[in-house]
Amino acid sequence: MGPLNQVATNVRWHHAAVGPEERAQRLGQRGVVVWLTGLSGAGKSTIAARVDARLHARGRHSYILDGDNLRFGLCRDLGFSPEDRAENVRRLGEAARLLQDAGLIVLVAAISPYREDRARVRERVPAGHFLEVFVDAPLAVCESRDPKGLYRRARAGEIAGFSGIDAPYEPPDAPDLHLLFHADATSPHAPVDSSLPHAEAAEAAEEVTGQGPATDGERRVAVGASPDEHAAAIVALLEARGLLVAPAGA
Amino acid sequence: MGPLNQVATNVRWHHAAVGPEERAQRLGQRGVVVWLTGLSGAGKSTIAARVDARLHARGRHSYILDGDNLRFGLCRDLGFSPEDRAENVRRLGEAARLLQDAGLIVLVAAISPYREDRARVRERVPAGHFLEVFVDAPLAVCESRDPKGLYRRARAGEIAGFSGIDAPYEPPDAPDLHLLFHADATSPHAPVDSSLPHAEAAEAAEEVTGQGPATDGERRVAVGASPDEHAAAIVALLEARGLLVAPAGA
Repeated sequence: MGPLNQVATNVRWHHAAVGPEERAQRLGQRGVVVWLTGLSGAGKSTIAARVDARLHARGRHSYILDGDNLRFGLCRDLGFSPEDRAENVRRLGEAARLLQDAGLIVLVAAISPYREDRARVRERVPAGHFLEVFVDAPLAVCESRDPKGLYRRARAGEIAGFSGIDAPYEPPDAPDLHLLFHADATSPHAPVDSSLPHAEAAEAAEEVTGQGPATDGERRVAVGASPDEHAAAIVALLEARGLLVAPAGA
Repeated sequence: MGPLNQVATNVRWHHAAVGPEERAQRLGQRGVVVWLTGLSGAGKSTIAARVDARLHARGRHSYILDGDNLRFGLCRDLGFSPEDRAENVRRLGEAARLLQDAGLIVLVAAISPYREDRARVRERVPAGHFLEVFVDAPLAVCESRDPKGLYRRARAGEIAGFSGIDAPYEPPDAPDLHLLFHADATSPHAPVDSSLPHAEAAEAAEEVTGQGPATDGERRVAVGASPDEHAAAIVALLEARGLLVAPAGA
């Protein structure tokens, strides 16, 4: 629904006295939405928690918006039909946008299976302040983990419309960061191989997936065997984009 | 809608690694929702902006959620029927709760005319972290100001369901802070008389309104002639409740 579909017309915008620049100066960081998308069980919430802990340890102010948690609150009236999923992602996006505007590094962990729904959120956030992170664990890996027993229930027909089983998951075309898992990522002793430079990671990605990753210089691929390695790649992206410092010239 | 009405049942709560206590330590403040309720034109947004500026100047991290602004975003699909107003206040409350949980001092400026809707929000925020502030400008004052020309249009029958005109406004029974206006509040040269202690303010309130204010020791009444005086009273309340310092014992 675009601005033209707004229901309330007798309202005016109130400008804030303290703006994003002032907040960024005070906090020593820029507000940004880091949107983790991927299948259920891919590790989105776990990675977000590790990023949150890393940023907190560095004196940064971040916050997790977990898609599951918001279904107990802001999105409690919504189910899993495509329309409800669109509205769910829209509200998540609007909440993230408020936190971003307040100067926070907002870590959103949500399956958000539809490309168009995610693109709409990106449009609502100031350019450069929305980073899409594709948590790309293969379906087989997610299903073998099945941390909440949902795949088992979906396969048994007890849950309908489950992303990746009987409902679509549309992977990002050009994520800001593409997190790939080692084939042996489920082994606790898998070799650590994080923070690869782009070219090397691109090659690794091609080996792992058989597809070339996005080649735009701004986009990154990281191959990791643990949530911590993937969290490190997200923090590195925030640093590379200049989001972990106060804006220059003030 | 209570938790039992939640639509999505296949979701689990994800606990955050960094909790409210850690955030409060880092920020030197406690997350709190300051909810400004009152008629259109009472001065809620103006007062909220002054509080935001005062807190920012003191190195505190606050953010305004303006009911009007959210109707361009999170609540864009809602109108002004009682049901839509209830859902509007619910979403405002849920967004405020997220910002509060992230450690911010959230200043909500919203008519929020129904007592029950406001009470439901209070229930969703940890005890002591929701402060209801009644911005109590008389209807005649609000209507004479009419900053957006809405009263004129409501009286002309061009807007239906306008709080205070042809829709109810239910004042708080026991607000944490009751902001009263001097009878001569519209004069720029009205005498400054802010930050009155409770007993004195109670007397003044009785003079101004002819009613006794809430007498609970925890509740306050402030009489002021300007948004700045009322903003000062809100900051004083935050201080008195110990919300502008890091929690003790860490």
